Amino acid sequence: MIRFLTSGESHGRCLAAIIDGMPYGLKISEKDINLELSRRRKGYGRGERAASIENDIAEIVSGVRQGRTIASPITILIKNRDWQNWSEVMCLEKMKFDKRFIMPSARPGHADLAGYLKYDSEEIRDILERASARETAARVAVGSVCKKFLSEFGIRITSYVKEIGGIKARNVNIDIDKIISASEQSPVRCLDSAAEKNMIKMIEKAQADGNTLGGRFVVVVSGAPVGLGSHAQWDNKLDARLSLALMSIQSVKAVAIGAGFNASELSGSKFHDEIYYKKGIGYLRKTNNAGGIEGGISNGETIICDCIVKPIPSLKKPLTTVDLKTKKSVKAEAVRSDVCVVPAAGVVGESAVAVEIAKAFTEKFSGDTIREIKRNFSAYRAYLAKR
Amino acid sequence: MIRFLTSGESHGRCLAAIIDGMPYGLKISEKDINLELSRRRKGYGRGERAASIENDIAEIVSGVRQGRTIASPITILIKNRDWQNWSEVMCLEKMKFDKRFIMPSARPGHADLAGYLKYDSEEIRDILERASARETAARVAVGSVCKKFLSEFGIRITSYVKEIGGIKARNVNIDIDKIISASEQSPVRCLDSAAEKNMIKMIEKAQADGNTLGGRFVVVVSGAPVGLGSHAQWDNKLDARLSLALMSIQSVKAVAIGAGFNASELSGSKFHDEIYYKKGIGYLRKTNNAGGIEGGISNGETIICDCIVKPIPSLKKPLTTVDLKTKKSVKAEAVRSDVCVVPAAGVVGESAVAVEIAKAFTEKFSGDTIREIKRNFSAYRAYLAKR
Amino acid sequence: MIRFLTSGESHGRCLAAIIDGMPYGLKISEKDINLELSRRRKGYGRGERAASIENDIAEIVSGVRQGRTIASPITILIKNRDWQNWSEVMCLEKMKFDKRFIMPSARPGHADLAGYLKYDSEEIRDILERASARETAARVAVGSVCKKFLSEFGIRITSYVKEIGGIKARNVNIDIDKIISASEQSPVRCLDSAAEKNMIKMIEKAQADGNTLGGRFVVVVSGAPVGLGSHAQWDNKLDARLSLALMSIQSVKAVAIGAGFNASELSGSKFHDEIYYKKGIGYLRKTNNAGGIEGGISNGETIICDCIVKPIPSLKKPLTTVDLKTKKSVKAEAVRSDVCVVPAAGVVGESAVAVEIAKAFTEKFSGDTIREIKRNFSAYRAYLAKR
Amino acid sequence: MIRFLTSGESHGRCLAAIIDGMPYGLKISEKDINLELSRRRKGYGRGERAASIENDIAEIVSGVRQGRTIASPITILIKNRDWQNWSEVMCLEKMKFDKRFIMPSARPGHADLAGYLKYDSEEIRDILERASARETAARVAVGSVCKKFLSEFGIRITSYVKEIGGIKARNVNIDIDKIISASEQSPVRCLDSAAEKNMIKMIEKAQADGNTLGGRFVVVVSGAPVGLGSHAQWDNKLDARLSLALMSIQSVKAVAIGAGFNASELSGSKFHDEIYYKKGIGYLRKTNNAGGIEGGISNGETIICDCIVKPIPSLKKPLTTVDLKTKKSVKAEAVRSDVCVVPAAGVVGESAVAVEIAKAFTEKFSGDTIREIKRNFSAYRAYLAKR
Repeated sequence: MIRFLTSGESHGRCLAAIIDGMPYGLKISEKDINLELSRRRKGYGRGERAASIENDIAEIVSGVRQGRTIASPITILIKNRDWQNWSEVMCLEKMKFDKRFIMPSARPGHADLAGYLKYDSEEIRDILERASARETAARVAVGSVCKKFLSEFGIRITSYVKEIGGIKARNVNIDIDKIISASEQSPVRCLDSAAEKNMIKMIEKAQADGNTLGGRFVVVVSGAPVGLGSHAQWDNKLDARLSLALMSIQSVKAVAIGAGFNASELSGSKFHDEIYYKKGIGYLRKTNNAGGIEGGISNGETIICDCIVKPIPSLKKPLTTVDLKTKKSVKAEAVRSDVCVVPAAGVVGESAVAVEIAKAFTEKFSGDTIREIKRNFSAYRAYLAKR
Repeated sequence: MIRFLTSGESHGRCLAAIIDGMPYGLKISEKDINLELSRRRKGYGRGERAASIENDIAEIVSGVRQGRTIASPITILIKNRDWQNWSEVMCLEKMKFDKRFIMPSARPGHADLAGYLKYDSEEIRDILERASARETAARVAVGSVCKKFLSEFGIRITSYVKEIGGIKARNVNIDIDKIISASEQSPVRCLDSAAEKNMIKMIEKAQADGNTLGGRFVVVVSGAPVGLGSHAQWDNKLDARLSLALMSIQSVKAVAIGAGFNASELSGSKFHDEIYYKKGIGYLRKTNNAGGIEGGISNGETIICDCIVKPIPSLKKPLTTVDLKTKKSVKAEAVRSDVCVVPAAGVVGESAVAVEIAKAFTEKFSGDTIREIKRNFSAYRAYLAKR
Repeated sequence: MIRFLTSGESHGRCLAAIIDGMPYGLKISEKDINLELSRRRKGYGRGERAASIENDIAEIVSGVRQGRTIASPITILIKNRDWQNWSEVMCLEKMKFDKRFIMPSARPGHADLAGYLKYDSEEIRDILERASARETAARVAVGSVCKKFLSEFGIRITSYVKEIGGIKARNVNIDIDKIISASEQSPVRCLDSAAEKNMIKMIEKAQADGNTLGGRFVVVVSGAPVGLGSHAQWDNKLDARLSLALMSIQSVKAVAIGAGFNASELSGSKFHDEIYYKKGIGYLRKTNNAGGIEGGISNGETIICDCIVKPIPSLKKPLTTVDLKTKKSVKAEAVRSDVCVVPAAGVVGESAVAVEIAKAFTEKFSGDTIREIKRNFSAYRAYLAKR
Repeated sequence: MIRFLTSGESHGRCLAAIIDGMPYGLKISEKDINLELSRRRKGYGRGERAASIENDIAEIVSGVRQGRTIASPITILIKNRDWQNWSEVMCLEKMKFDKRFIMPSARPGHADLAGYLKYDSEEIRDILERASARETAARVAVGSVCKKFLSEFGIRITSYVKEIGGIKARNVNIDIDKIISASEQSPVRCLDSAAEKNMIKMIEKAQADGNTLGGRFVVVVSGAPVGLGSHAQWDNKLDARLSLALMSIQSVKAVAIGAGFNASELSGSKFHDEIYYKKGIGYLRKTNNAGGIEGGISNGETIICDCIVKPIPSLKKPLTTVDLKTKKSVKAEAVRSDVCVVPAAGVVGESAVAVEIAKAFTEKFSGDTIREIKRNFSAYRAYLAKR
């Protein structure tokens, strides 16, 4: 069973992750992880930090030997390249530090106040350091290993942006290869070049206003076989598990599977995907409104997860809040920050999805070695071909 | 730790649920459960089965003694009142049955085909019996116990319908008491009487067409304290956990927290909820777009979960599919069925939410006895009053 | 993933269990379960209740259809055949009952006092009803399904008694078939007929004295392949998981794997099992002190779990305790009870072990259908033959 | 909920652990961890590696700030101080290394062969590196944090050695302070100085013979309140959970709670612990054969876990095994190694126990902040005083 924990504070020494249960014999290197980390940093509208300080380099310090996994837990560290500037504030031991680092008030939209009250914490920094979306770098590291694993079985995962700040891209119906190449080339990971231009303008306007923008991204999983997840118990359903993983991303506020966001407007005869059979291939669907999952089980079509991202709450032109000591109304701290993280959130979403698909995949085809899983998977495909 | 499993087939002997970890001393009776079960059956647009055969009666057969829980697992059974008509088809032992009960083809939109292939099953019935939304009766039974538990601490949960078949209700800003009374009185659980009329017309039209309708419901949690869930690890976030629970409901295809469905259109300065302080009450928000959860932690505001429901896939005027033996194109089985389950899905949603809130609540305030939890909860509220 | 919950009070309406994750296509009937339940009731030294009232009959009320499992959760009910005598004391609703059923003091050796204090309970009965070893009937029901599952793959599980009340049986080195036949024929499940006689005498003496006896049983798993469990993370080790399952049995106070109880006395050169190779069979061990598990992984030898059982704490000649109201020293309630449950505990132990082996087995060979697991398992055996 | 994963290979770059769910506000430093790590290395009979190369230093790289935990996951790294000698063999990337590091045969008593077959691994080293007891250093690091947490509530945990290589110490009945001071002073952590001498002689003899010795250690938990764990579900029982944790230690082959190893020999009237009441203190037991746990719940007495340790399987005078290529009989690799690890295993056992007690403690008294837990715990004690 694949499981993982992440750790690390935004300005701490490092981010870390331990992935337990990755099968034996997966060829993997730090490059595979760093590639995904660099994809996470990109996207028009990211601030300076993402571009420079966050130039993350992952180190694998356990679980991989001689070029492949050895079934023992994989540890990944991502060191904070700016640690020297934070070693006092974030010191392990009690130590004096510049009091300007103490936040006097909680920023709306962050975990600040809820965490401060829940944990009876001395300082909001104790909460915000972990609640920060910086943590998603560790999750992308985990996801990149799962992506590599899935690629051994022809499963590919990518994402693209459908909307930023109200600017909607047209729907395009292209295959995964084209989605990958088009999204990687676009500064906002958008497949519609007309919308792309407007999105960029919108970001520039928001930047000028000291404001931020949300949007919508789609994660696409191509090549997943029929039969991942289960209908039999509520918490085994693949769509439910994907939702947990995606909603746990800091800025995601809504998750849909397939055409879920439009499901309230379409009648049953329009929404559901009719079935046909193609010799040599098997059962297929004419449409894919279900997003590749029916009854909590993958149905062999492309898995589609559609997510809405809130505008990030760190504003240059800050919102009203309360001073924690005086209880008086004040402006929240103005933080240099990103204007729009939707493209990056999509990359994080890919990782969240990759983990859940990898989990479900190893549940179905065993979790011990790449060779064994391939054997079991081929036998299953041979069985499917005969059904 | 509260956890539960449900079991039972749609036309089997009974549905069952075991709830483990419910604290000692909760006053509960079968009436509390039956009330929620009857709410689940209602709603304009339900078919005959819901109204008659599904006249469910829950039996508590363990975990409650002398009027209150005794900390041992609670077992709830809901017998199939129509069992005599299914005792051959669903017989425990191998037995001849009327072959008309064997479905020759998989219905689009159901688990039928994916399950049939995953489980190498002899018959689609082996899958559909468990994948059916009938299972949600067991989940409502579980949720009703959790609702009763939460009510001891002033936490109330209800739901209302925001949209059916494209007919949208106006936004209303009313308190939980009014939501409860208005939703219970409306045949479609809608708070906007103008929209209600159009929704009913829409349902009647769909019925005449042999079609079905989806929609959108909102679950509202009033009285939840600040501090449920955690920002510290991805799978402890309250919003993520709620998403899993809600997306696991058979017809739900999209889940948002708060104003999540609109988050892509609002700028940061519009979306985030400014904070103020009211003496004697504490920290409050001017708006509630966050839906009561920031950073994965409840912030003391009303928790709002917004869900989109697909039109149910059992159509009187059936879709095209494939005969499993001949692989030829055929029409799916026409099933007498509901036209619109959105109001009922909302009631199920309440239960899904109740379970997750109860879990998070017992994690925060201990899980042993109502008396102890009240003691811990009061002490926490006294602490909050001083922060 | 196989998981289960049990429920039910000793004198409640029924015991229940839900088993989630059992693969599709396992042929099973109530007889398979009832056979194991009857084995649990036997054993020289059991009281009247075990022999008569506990004449348990299991009902499968979900998860099985037309003679085989259908991948949906299996629900098993075991009704209390003496319910009419307990319907007032154990009434779901608040109701008057004979106050003689209220225990004025906590019995040493039971959960009584610890539970009474932990749960702030009104009555000790609220605790003892669930803490009772009666619950193990539900666990045997679960185990019997897992045993049936394992038998499909040539894995067999039995138990025998090694010691009762200090009377030790000689070690015998016989194969699983002989262990099964000999243990089933012995009234104390003992393989050494000389010791058996002394054990019976010892039990009779204890009975005359109003006393009880503990002992030691061994669970034997034959046919488990190399490769169940994992060395990679502490909680995945097969021996650790077996220990949890066995120690959770009410009367078990010590668990050893293989020759574990003697491991402190043997030197390394005596304890460890040398390896040899036999063409056509593979790697073998000359001895089996490891009990079939090395490094948390099954090694292909017979898995042996050795358990010590305390004398049951319900004594006819009761121990000293304290009146809960007056705090004065009193004698505990004298309860008609079993004198020795060691043989029965062994049968329960088989079930505890069966569940854990079945879990580990489905993790290794997938958990979806008997047919698929057989395919994966054969392929693994073919691979092993070539290593 | 406290949970953790460890990672790292014996000769890899580092060991690591992530502890999730540790409450806010625990004062902790690397010294607290290093102290326990140094205790683990000690004990007469350890080889050179333990004494020198394993001079472990823990680094906390997340989860602690300004001297106390901040509720975010704690990451601990223990770097391999001998890494430069292993950087080729254990290289992350495929790289040539001295083929003498390739083990041609599997050592009896290790995970070697079972792991090699299960994981279809190219080399035994891929398995042994993780299966090594070196991993317990990471577990001790985790345990040391839990011990620190428990010490805030007056709960102390220590261990002593009861037997080595068949030499048994006399039973002593002393309080925790004396056990701590006596065990820390003894080179074999033995409380009986006569036995200590014989144990040392035994170790010297084994060393001369190229042999190894097992033994028995006891973990003692003083100050645990009544009410940890639960009787209500099999996997919540405190004794069962302790068993899993202890049996997962590499060399442990048997676990008993209290006088469990003798439970088969004592009659019920001798085994069970009579109850009395002392004003101002509460309910007490005259004896403690139950080892502080009844019905899966701590009863307020000292918790006692008794473990038997096998002689470690790395022998200077090696056992017979099979060459993996030729399948011919050969001698296993002779490894410089420890002769006796029983005292060290006891220290590891303390950590295993500390984690489980800390888990159960936070389940009972909430898991958010030291201050809140103290508040809840005091209120519980005040309640207990009135019962």
